Amino acid sequence: MLTAKERARVEVVLVRARNPNNIGAVARAMHDFGFGRLAVVSDYPVPLETARAAIDADEVVARAATPGSVAEAVRTCTLVLGTTAVGERALEHPLWTLKDAAARVREHMVDNAVHRVGLLFGSEKTGLSNEELSHCHALVTIPMEQYAGVRHPSMNLGQALAVCLYELVREREMERVISAPAMATSGDVDRLRELFAEVLQVSGYVRRHPAKSDEAQVRRLLLRAVPTAMDAPVWMGVLRQVLWGLRREK
Amino acid sequence: MLTAKERARVEVVLVRARNPNNIGAVARAMHDFGFGRLAVVSDYPVPLETARAAIDADEVVARAATPGSVAEAVRTCTLVLGTTAVGERALEHPLWTLKDAAARVREHMVDNAVHRVGLLFGSEKTGLSNEELSHCHALVTIPMEQYAGVRHPSMNLGQALAVCLYELVREREMERVISAPAMATSGDVDRLRELFAEVLQVSGYVRRHPAKSDEAQVRRLLLRAVPTAMDAPVWMGVLRQVLWGLRREK
Repeated sequence: MLTAKERARVEVVLVRARNPNNIGAVARAMHDFGFGRLAVVSDYPVPLETARAAIDADEVVARAATPGSVAEAVRTCTLVLGTTAVGERALEHPLWTLKDAAARVREHMVDNAVHRVGLLFGSEKTGLSNEELSHCHALVTIPMEQYAGVRHPSMNLGQALAVCLYELVREREMERVISAPAMATSGDVDRLRELFAEVLQVSGYVRRHPAKSDEAQVRRLLLRAVPTAMDAPVWMGVLRQVLWGLRREK
Repeated sequence: MLTAKERARVEVVLVRARNPNNIGAVARAMHDFGFGRLAVVSDYPVPLETARAAIDADEVVARAATPGSVAEAVRTCTLVLGTTAVGERALEHPLWTLKDAAARVREHMVDNAVHRVGLLFGSEKTGLSNEELSHCHALVTIPMEQYAGVRHPSMNLGQALAVCLYELVREREMERVISAPAMATSGDVDRLRELFAEVLQVSGYVRRHPAKSDEAQVRRLLLRAVPTAMDAPVWMGVLRQVLWGLRREK
């Protein structure tokens, strides 16, 4: 998991991205995961004004750089990774799965405040060219489903970026962990069981199904129902009411 | 990592999704990661025809179900998980990070061919309602950046779905692993070093920098350059040519 300071040393570089929706989606995912440095390399003017509409992502887009070339975009980086769907291209680079790449990025960042990582994404249609890939130390791929006889899949740019950034912050602890409602104690469950046994008795269930009514069986039944501390008193109330109704019937 | 058979027992349920672009993006991510069962629950007619245009996702959309309610969508599921950005909502469910949830899904699936998992996604604007969440065994959240004083972030639907499915198949091995180009052998490097030493000698570098020219130093220099088996002959050729040029100068 990258710290905030380490995330500030990650440069997301979109190469030849021309669709403002895609740029907006990228900026939003960066914002969601706490990354702020975006560069868009393009031969054409980049329609950043349009992308600026993306929810929550205004600041990322407003601060985006528009370097004139990949070389300029990654000039200060010490590790440059190119994302690829691994087509038929002859590979002249090490190829890492995203999981392994994230581990290497963490290693590269830790204890070295001058290390900067560039993460290159090509256009959806053509990916990164060989010239663009020649700036990379290694290639990263998101393992996807392979379909026999079907062209290799490529991901939507915003989705691929979201998955990559998620992997970099995956170990993050939740700041507000409310892992689960508190469970009922064994004592709570046993009081429930006594009341439940009474219901089974009074309702005539025990008479009809004696083999299913012994104490241990009923306790297991209630434990499997995994009552929470919050729910136990509700169940007690329900059972008391049922018992009252059953007794009044007699 | 879920097997293909296990992935066929995962039901992605979009609740109140009305934007065909979002449905298309979801279908594409499902296709990319090898999931096929999509259900869209909506009070309004779902514009699946429009979503069908999504690249690669035709089949997922064509087979999508349109149940009339969440209850109907998850009827055959044995574990139902609701995704949430954890707003201010009082939590009455266990809350798992995506990473933990994926581990539990794997446990739940393994060795039990009748277990089916439902993965619920609410609308981008409002998330899942309390009624919709009441069908869930637990809530899942993708840990995101928290900004002081800013409303809790929520992710783009297609991106959130892609991240969730990625986590479920994250351990997948690449079928065509070409992890790295083969490295040069120590013998290759040593032949390079001999030739390089000759270049340093003939060019006059050794005379000017004797302290930087000893054998071990040069070998370390070349090893740090990490030559691949593919590159070693190229370097040999370059050095031979340089040597030839230097000698002709004399």
